Amino acid sequence: MKLDHHKRIAFIGAGNVAWHLSQALVGAGHEVVSVYSRTVKSAEVLCSLLPGAKPISDLNMKDTDAEIIIIAVPDAVLNNILKLLKIPEGVIIAHTSGSQPLAILDSIKNARTGVFYPLQTFSKSKQIDLSHAPILIEAKENDTKKILEALALSISTQVLEVSSTKRKQLHLSAVFACNFTNHLLGISRQLLQEASLPEELLQPLIQETITKANLQNPYTVQTGPAIRRDNNVINDHIKMLESHPRLQELYRALTLSIQQTDTEE
Amino acid sequence: MKLDHHKRIAFIGAGNVAWHLSQALVGAGHEVVSVYSRTVKSAEVLCSLLPGAKPISDLNMKDTDAEIIIIAVPDAVLNNILKLLKIPEGVIIAHTSGSQPLAILDSIKNARTGVFYPLQTFSKSKQIDLSHAPILIEAKENDTKKILEALALSISTQVLEVSSTKRKQLHLSAVFACNFTNHLLGISRQLLQEASLPEELLQPLIQETITKANLQNPYTVQTGPAIRRDNNVINDHIKMLESHPRLQELYRALTLSIQQTDTEE
Repeated sequence: MKLDHHKRIAFIGAGNVAWHLSQALVGAGHEVVSVYSRTVKSAEVLCSLLPGAKPISDLNMKDTDAEIIIIAVPDAVLNNILKLLKIPEGVIIAHTSGSQPLAILDSIKNARTGVFYPLQTFSKSKQIDLSHAPILIEAKENDTKKILEALALSISTQVLEVSSTKRKQLHLSAVFACNFTNHLLGISRQLLQEASLPEELLQPLIQETITKANLQNPYTVQTGPAIRRDNNVINDHIKMLESHPRLQELYRALTLSIQQTDTEE
Repeated sequence: MKLDHHKRIAFIGAGNVAWHLSQALVGAGHEVVSVYSRTVKSAEVLCSLLPGAKPISDLNMKDTDAEIIIIAVPDAVLNNILKLLKIPEGVIIAHTSGSQPLAILDSIKNARTGVFYPLQTFSKSKQIDLSHAPILIEAKENDTKKILEALALSISTQVLEVSSTKRKQLHLSAVFACNFTNHLLGISRQLLQEASLPEELLQPLIQETITKANLQNPYTVQTGPAIRRDNNVINDHIKMLESHPRLQELYRALTLSIQQTDTEE
């Protein structure tokens, strides 16, 4: 607990990101003074885990005693939130979005704006250790940047300053590595279930795939029927997916992409 | 080293699977007597790692003193190999393919046929511990099955008897979980490189994605712009991929599939 860096923080949003970030910050010795959520119940549940935090339902936060306001809401509602938000002069306000620029906060008068983006995937149902998750920082002024950096370093060992443009590119890359990969793992599990095969059977294979991709360029260690151009197996697989046209199409698109990568490289 | 289970084994094929399987079997106390490869050089290189093993270039193996012949060749050439192969009566012959049925070995006269399929991804450039990789066994006769089971148990703790039909379904599932996932990780790394971002930045996120998918049904923990139906971000991403039409198409197909899964469930 670093008392010299102790900050009073308010959260806007009580979803997956706010859920984990607020608890990590409290765990590091900071104080979460309030949580705003459109659905008050969500704010109440999260506040029950954060000693002293109050659930609020009003975006007029002129009277908050927070030093930092962290906005952790879906990108789609961010602009609406910003239109309604009122904050005291000089407060630091940071959003947690991978794809939104720092400049989206410019509409807020007299604020010290920044970005505090934890590069991790969050679900309320699963505890997570943030200490190795990169936290990407950006700020308009140097003072603000220093404060956000110190805040990030209090919960993670990996803190980087990254511009809005780069963060957006990183987010796109993360969509492939995380969101899309998760979907493929879901499909794979669905196919195991439909075949009445044990779901844990593929775990060693999945773990090795990831470990290998970490050590080498995945393009150079690609295996499977697509890269071998084994059309008998490919056609067999597409036939086996007959009752899942969506999966057939995905199988074809991924096979084609693997084969085109091969010839491009 | 279990001397009572010590077997003399011949390999047909010197690719990724033969490479790792032969070394694991020698490590467990078995003897690899010979390695056949279409390219003699590959057989020679592998044999240099297996004490006493001889590289051979003839598929007339009537004189082999192996008790078990393991065929580890690409599916596409399996039939050609089988046409040319001659083996002594009573020898056990097993293939290592996920997608080929046991019955493909029926063309071999007087052989005791089986399948010995290690469910793992192999690259020569990376060492691997097979002890937790499932090995899927199938055999025509019970005696053969027992011998292949014992052989598998000498190198792995996870040995299962799985029918040709189920193995094929498992292989399809593995293509999604491993081959396709690896390709997405390759894309993700390519995008990081193009943005001059550190390649290791996404590792904690990737690892957490896999860990989470192991604990819960991935469909239920899906995150990202597709599942949030965040069309601003989705359109932004597609625009950012303008110079990669192949990746644009893949992005669209995966986004659609995630959204359709959502409504199906």
